[in-house]
Amino acid sequence: MTQFVGVKDMARWIARDGLDRVIRLIAAGIEEDLAAWEKFEKVPRMAAHSDIGVIELMPISDDELYAFKYVNGHPDNPLRGIQTIAAFGALADVATGHPVFLAEMTLLTAVRTAAMSTVAAKRLARPESRVMAMIGAGSQAEFQAIGMREILGINELRVYDVDPYGVAKLVNNLEPLGFHITTCSRVDEAVTGADIVTTCTADKQHAVALMDSHVAAGMHINAIGGDCPGKTELDPRILERARVFVEFEEQTRIEGEIQMMPADFPVTELWRVVTDRADGRVRNRDITVFDSVGFALADLSALRVCWQATAGTNLQTDIDLIADPRDPKDLFSLIMHPVEAGEDVAERLA
Amino acid sequence: MTQFVGVKDMARWIARDGLDRVIRLIAAGIEEDLAAWEKFEKVPRMAAHSDIGVIELMPISDDELYAFKYVNGHPDNPLRGIQTIAAFGALADVATGHPVFLAEMTLLTAVRTAAMSTVAAKRLARPESRVMAMIGAGSQAEFQAIGMREILGINELRVYDVDPYGVAKLVNNLEPLGFHITTCSRVDEAVTGADIVTTCTADKQHAVALMDSHVAAGMHINAIGGDCPGKTELDPRILERARVFVEFEEQTRIEGEIQMMPADFPVTELWRVVTDRADGRVRNRDITVFDSVGFALADLSALRVCWQATAGTNLQTDIDLIADPRDPKDLFSLIMHPVEAGEDVAERLA
Repeated sequence: MTQFVGVKDMARWIARDGLDRVIRLIAAGIEEDLAAWEKFEKVPRMAAHSDIGVIELMPISDDELYAFKYVNGHPDNPLRGIQTIAAFGALADVATGHPVFLAEMTLLTAVRTAAMSTVAAKRLARPESRVMAMIGAGSQAEFQAIGMREILGINELRVYDVDPYGVAKLVNNLEPLGFHITTCSRVDEAVTGADIVTTCTADKQHAVALMDSHVAAGMHINAIGGDCPGKTELDPRILERARVFVEFEEQTRIEGEIQMMPADFPVTELWRVVTDRADGRVRNRDITVFDSVGFALADLSALRVCWQATAGTNLQTDIDLIADPRDPKDLFSLIMHPVEAGEDVAERLA
Repeated sequence: MTQFVGVKDMARWIARDGLDRVIRLIAAGIEEDLAAWEKFEKVPRMAAHSDIGVIELMPISDDELYAFKYVNGHPDNPLRGIQTIAAFGALADVATGHPVFLAEMTLLTAVRTAAMSTVAAKRLARPESRVMAMIGAGSQAEFQAIGMREILGINELRVYDVDPYGVAKLVNNLEPLGFHITTCSRVDEAVTGADIVTTCTADKQHAVALMDSHVAAGMHINAIGGDCPGKTELDPRILERARVFVEFEEQTRIEGEIQMMPADFPVTELWRVVTDRADGRVRNRDITVFDSVGFALADLSALRVCWQATAGTNLQTDIDLIADPRDPKDLFSLIMHPVEAGEDVAERLA
């Protein structure tokens, strides 16, 4: 039987182990997979765009595991009272091709994105970083904040969102957890003095959540929301001054902030930093940008970690996805003798 | 809530309505979608190949529905006692990007492949066809036979398989349903006098299940098993003598029998025949080949038909795939207040 973790059980797992520890666990999984980068079969995700959103499939595999995620992005969904994204995904055994694990990934994507941000920031932000500006206080904001505190010790947040309600929600969620939060009414107010700037907005257009004048020497910019063709957040002049790091260059050229730059604009894939083949931050004054669009590898890591961490517990349930007739060549027998079928089918067809 | 139909419930649905009637229903859905061909966003499927098999994702969408299927092909699986393929898929609402329906598709793929074969054969086989040769008696054979009887009135089968057990299984399954079956020990014995030849073998290699000398004027060849790069079933000389029809040319050039032919080898997409923009069979003596590799459109049709036919019945169950916090921007609240979480998370993180 394929094992399944739905939304409620995903929430229960994260609550049981703690979001901070789950992010740490998944970040370690991502680092392990980034270190083995060359063994993965990698392709840019397949996207189906409509006027109001996008639906994507994100597959990746190595010799043992195949993973894919289904995910949409519909920025106007919250106006209808529903999540901007809904995601789910699966792991399959490459040896048989059969799915072994299916899970909701709306929560898991928020967790793995936070974990990925920490993997980058650990190598790209100044070690003494303590203050993070957050531009965008939507669904992912709390996950980012808790990840950055767990891995980098960031405890001071300066938050701006066009929607003051989002800011209030974030304060309400994070102040009880001991964060020091300054709410800001303008972007420049939020970023002044920040060590790390996380941009995470959802507009499906070329927006400028962060202007060049906002960015000071030494900053690390964790740019999460520019993740579709036609959807960017940064003033392109920031990129010209910065050293830019990406997950998977082939995909980021299409989707990331660097879609605004020439095709030969220099970028460094993060796995090269993780494996010491390329420098992360070199000088204190460097401006670094993690142009994060979300890549399938981190989804595989997150699914694997979740699968292992919930194995053998009641967080996993059986899901009836594998047709398993006694004789593998006799698929037809399942129809002729369905469990609890109310009708003698053989008789009716005869 | 997303609705789910697992293997047992799929079998119960097909048993409840009858495989013949379900094939007819899905064939009608496929014809409806083929008639609207130009409104679909179509891409060749994404395949991840290993030495022993392939795992594929097959997406397609129009303005209203997005569908995708996960499916593998591992010809040696039956030696391990498991199905060659395991498939599942989903329908999503393009307006919100949220999945509305998830279903097993191992059974459903066998059904939709049979339905697709009938859509082609209805236009490509001679109207007086009564005898079908079947080369390959694996998981899909019974579905093909029942579809061809339901739509074309084929009641006489001549069956060959390298594995005599497969043939015995097919006879055992279909004779009680009133089919006249001749078991054959050689391909030429099976095809002599046949009006339609269905080839459906699983070897992942260039095999020649059907030789040029086997093929007589007037035959329709329903070639199902050549569906991967490096996996074909027909002697290429057959293609030179035949008029060849495909589902989606861009994908079939990579995967179908015509991968053996030059890039400009003429083929006709089946939707053009369905919409009267191209001829199907013209003369009695024509040899026609439906070079069927399996295309996402038929999966969308099958998922939609199944979704509608099982709606409001206990064949569908809720599956917990949509994160739905009271406030759509407060995804984090699901973790802080998980259902039945055994721990006060807010306290632990503080």
